[in-house]
Amino acid sequence: MRLARGQVVLSRTLAGSRAVVRNQLLSRPLSSTIVRANEQATPSDVTPPPPRNGSKWRSFLQTLGRATLVSIIGGAGAFYYITQKERHPGQQLPYDPEKKTIVILGSGWGATSLLKTLDTMDYNVVVISPKNYFLFTPLLPSVAVGTLSPKSILQPTRYLARHKARAVTVIEAEAKEVDPVNKTVTFEDDSEIKGSVSHTTIPYDYCVYAVGAEVQTFGIPGVQEKACFMKELNDAELMQRRFKDCIETAAFPGQDSSEVDRLLHIVVVGGGPTGIEVSEIHDFLEDDLKSWYPELAGRVRISLVEALPSVLPMFSKQLIEYTESTFKESKIDILTKTMVKEVKDKSVVLQMPDKSIAEVPCGMVVWAGGNKGRKITQDLMAKFPEVQKNKRGITVDDHLRMAGAEGLFAIGDCTSTSYAPTAQVASQQGAYLARVFAQLAKKENLEKQLIALNQSVSTASAEEKAKVADGIESTKSQISKVKIRPFHYSHQGSLAYIGSDKAIADLPLANGNIASGGVATFLFWRSAYLSTLFSLRNRVLVANDWLITKIFGRDLSRD
Amino acid sequence: MRLARGQVVLSRTLAGSRAVVRNQLLSRPLSSTIVRANEQATPSDVTPPPPRNGSKWRSFLQTLGRATLVSIIGGAGAFYYITQKERHPGQQLPYDPEKKTIVILGSGWGATSLLKTLDTMDYNVVVISPKNYFLFTPLLPSVAVGTLSPKSILQPTRYLARHKARAVTVIEAEAKEVDPVNKTVTFEDDSEIKGSVSHTTIPYDYCVYAVGAEVQTFGIPGVQEKACFMKELNDAELMQRRFKDCIETAAFPGQDSSEVDRLLHIVVVGGGPTGIEVSEIHDFLEDDLKSWYPELAGRVRISLVEALPSVLPMFSKQLIEYTESTFKESKIDILTKTMVKEVKDKSVVLQMPDKSIAEVPCGMVVWAGGNKGRKITQDLMAKFPEVQKNKRGITVDDHLRMAGAEGLFAIGDCTSTSYAPTAQVASQQGAYLARVFAQLAKKENLEKQLIALNQSVSTASAEEKAKVADGIESTKSQISKVKIRPFHYSHQGSLAYIGSDKAIADLPLANGNIASGGVATFLFWRSAYLSTLFSLRNRVLVANDWLITKIFGRDLSRD
Repeated sequence: MRLARGQVVLSRTLAGSRAVVRNQLLSRPLSSTIVRANEQATPSDVTPPPPRNGSKWRSFLQTLGRATLVSIIGGAGAFYYITQKERHPGQQLPYDPEKKTIVILGSGWGATSLLKTLDTMDYNVVVISPKNYFLFTPLLPSVAVGTLSPKSILQPTRYLARHKARAVTVIEAEAKEVDPVNKTVTFEDDSEIKGSVSHTTIPYDYCVYAVGAEVQTFGIPGVQEKACFMKELNDAELMQRRFKDCIETAAFPGQDSSEVDRLLHIVVVGGGPTGIEVSEIHDFLEDDLKSWYPELAGRVRISLVEALPSVLPMFSKQLIEYTESTFKESKIDILTKTMVKEVKDKSVVLQMPDKSIAEVPCGMVVWAGGNKGRKITQDLMAKFPEVQKNKRGITVDDHLRMAGAEGLFAIGDCTSTSYAPTAQVASQQGAYLARVFAQLAKKENLEKQLIALNQSVSTASAEEKAKVADGIESTKSQISKVKIRPFHYSHQGSLAYIGSDKAIADLPLANGNIASGGVATFLFWRSAYLSTLFSLRNRVLVANDWLITKIFGRDLSRD
Repeated sequence: MRLARGQVVLSRTLAGSRAVVRNQLLSRPLSSTIVRANEQATPSDVTPPPPRNGSKWRSFLQTLGRATLVSIIGGAGAFYYITQKERHPGQQLPYDPEKKTIVILGSGWGATSLLKTLDTMDYNVVVISPKNYFLFTPLLPSVAVGTLSPKSILQPTRYLARHKARAVTVIEAEAKEVDPVNKTVTFEDDSEIKGSVSHTTIPYDYCVYAVGAEVQTFGIPGVQEKACFMKELNDAELMQRRFKDCIETAAFPGQDSSEVDRLLHIVVVGGGPTGIEVSEIHDFLEDDLKSWYPELAGRVRISLVEALPSVLPMFSKQLIEYTESTFKESKIDILTKTMVKEVKDKSVVLQMPDKSIAEVPCGMVVWAGGNKGRKITQDLMAKFPEVQKNKRGITVDDHLRMAGAEGLFAIGDCTSTSYAPTAQVASQQGAYLARVFAQLAKKENLEKQLIALNQSVSTASAEEKAKVADGIESTKSQISKVKIRPFHYSHQGSLAYIGSDKAIADLPLANGNIASGGVATFLFWRSAYLSTLFSLRNRVLVANDWLITKIFGRDLSRD
């Protein structure tokens, strides 16, 4: 019977830590009851095998195995629960005519950040945008190169809207006019399929103007018609299609050698982060072209053209040098102080640093230039000729209110501020406005309370009057405490992927910056972008795409 | 020292089967050497804890944990090894002017199946197709609905080509003319980007004509311009975009109720498997629209129009009834014996079973009709007016040789045979031709050997002559044994997805058929399609998409 002792020890071992059991065996030898059991034993087969060194390793493996199983099951369960909850949003509060209405124009960084942060308990919210989704623009070059699939960096605006406390109206339409006097917005369904109603005007109490900007071509001939851009999803898809078309055309039998060189020469214009990241196409060449088009792989050339004396002006000097040397290794030519004069069908005309003109044959031109105000922005600004004089965009005060227009806020690339036109700035502005609206609602609710208290004074009994007077005082004091601070931008740093699994980062610290570049920074870049993505869904999709690309490479199909 | 025995038993337990150890303890009690060790022990703490019931369960969990860990690590390692090997194909044999050249026109089911099976040791192979990829057409409706992403069902033809023993030339171009007299093919780069050479003629020894077919619109007004199709990848993407556009337009504020009903009415024309599977869009409504457009979800209607008296004529009667009842539950209307007379911008004109004409308002029309020969096929047939009289396609003999043309084989939808124009038929025809080419090469090699032997007879010594004569006899006998059997189609069954996680299957057995429908069949449908996909990459991508859609739903973004 007492042999059961052995069994118990064993099953404990199976379930728990092996080390504990070994200690038991060493410090508390088996009792005499076991000795009796042993007396019944035959002495055969008793020579013990030598002790094994592998037992620690085994124990480790066992624990690891258990931990893996538990974390897989637990993780999968939690993950499934969260995703299903996200996917099936519940009931929302309906439109409330008592509440003020905020109309948000746009669905980019500013608008989406605002919508995400905004408390909709106190407002009716309408979002109007020609795109019914938010596009995670920093990863757009990765879509162009084929590392990510387009859907992974999109988030339908309704996903966000349906999770707010109060129903948010999302309208896929292009705003045509903002009337800041009558406080209305006019918009139109610009898509292929139109209903009997496709043009409407709605009123607003507050309007957040976050329509972004257009690509600035500086009127250079041929750019608008012949270059690819890197602003919208279509641009990335077009660039990918063209690049693959260039490769297939170069592979056409009997193609001249010089024509192959032309077709496989890609010119990227603009030395900002977008231009630099488009050069990620070099990864495609290294990783994929070598396997599938071995005869062409060595012949692709990339030239990066920048009018300023240096690329990436927002980064520190050593990172610029690091980028330049990485590009040199990858055989990407950087042409600084060089300006594009014309884009032709099969070439680009450049003005070189010595002012000479060169016509460079190329298969495609990618234009990653600056921003220009949209027509609706120009129209809106023209309504305030006195105060809106800055051609670069809308002038706003330090509370992001459009100068001259009551109840109208402007954020992001459509404004002209001291900040760079980046996702980071627009995103912080959106979140700031959400806090502003919370404060405004708080103030307004207190003021309503104050009015009610003031009215009740007349009907109150003498006894109550003192109480009401106290209430009035306290409410007044609360109102005076509701302060709306001006917008303050806090720079979180600059990041850029420079190809070949390397990235650069310039991160602000208490005293100065950390400048870092290389493979570790690349992993940081990936995790920073993953955590910046607005939803779990996008995070999983992007991580999944990275894994798929790592395993299977990029696709070559030209659809 | 002998306590080490205990340790060994324990570590064995950790690594191996618990039951074995228990048997050891029961049948071979611990030896007297352990008794000696026990003599040194203090008798404290000896009362054994009671045996626990949980131990079996623990042991199971432990084994499961270990098995999970081992299979994850092992599986991941093997998977990574295989994928990396697939991704980095090695050196290939070069073009050999001694070998005959096979030109394959097309990259669909027939062409890809041929290329996959073909032994390239004995041939130079050239593939010419306007698409540089193979498209897994049966899953195209899933792409249209958004369950799968487009790239998942594409396989670049070069992936296959680069793994053949001899380098295969893949040309993205459209064949313009086949000259069966001079045995040449003329083709042209029809894409946006063209090089200085974009039009070429090359000779062939054998040509496999597998260009497929166009959509048959029967000249019905408006179909070509206004309907969506379901043949190429672009078609699926267009249908998705239009469907989402209809939804967004219906959600436009102030849209008439009747106009909302029109926009949300989808008419699918064609009751074959494609038309049925397009109705999978119903899944989108159920799974996704309810969450994100709750106000519209209940209002979408789907009508399936078929000119014949029944949908899915290739399936057995009970499966047709099952499909009809499933569609009824899903509120999909089936209109049989109904013909489309015209497709208009906002409606479709139908001729009802009673010959009356009805104009039905709708948001979009999906045309899943029949096939029509391409222009190049008509031109080719016109060169043999005596034998190529069948308007439905190329007439071939039982060896798939085009009647009248030497060295020209035709397979798939461009032919007119007794078989249905399905992927299954084309695929078997392609594999058959690969075997034909292997036999032809074998015969040719033997014939060359025979010629060499015949030549060597004259120079051989008397002694050798007998040997050579034997060799000639044996070679002749081998040649006579090389037989090329006629093509025989072996029907593997018909499968179709009918929405709501249900599928139908008609599988041939020794005596008759199995007809099956429902959720189990849906799982069978999925695994059958997974195993039919040509590459591991596509299998993983499709399975991954199914999982992603299951977890996160379909995307609503209209890009």
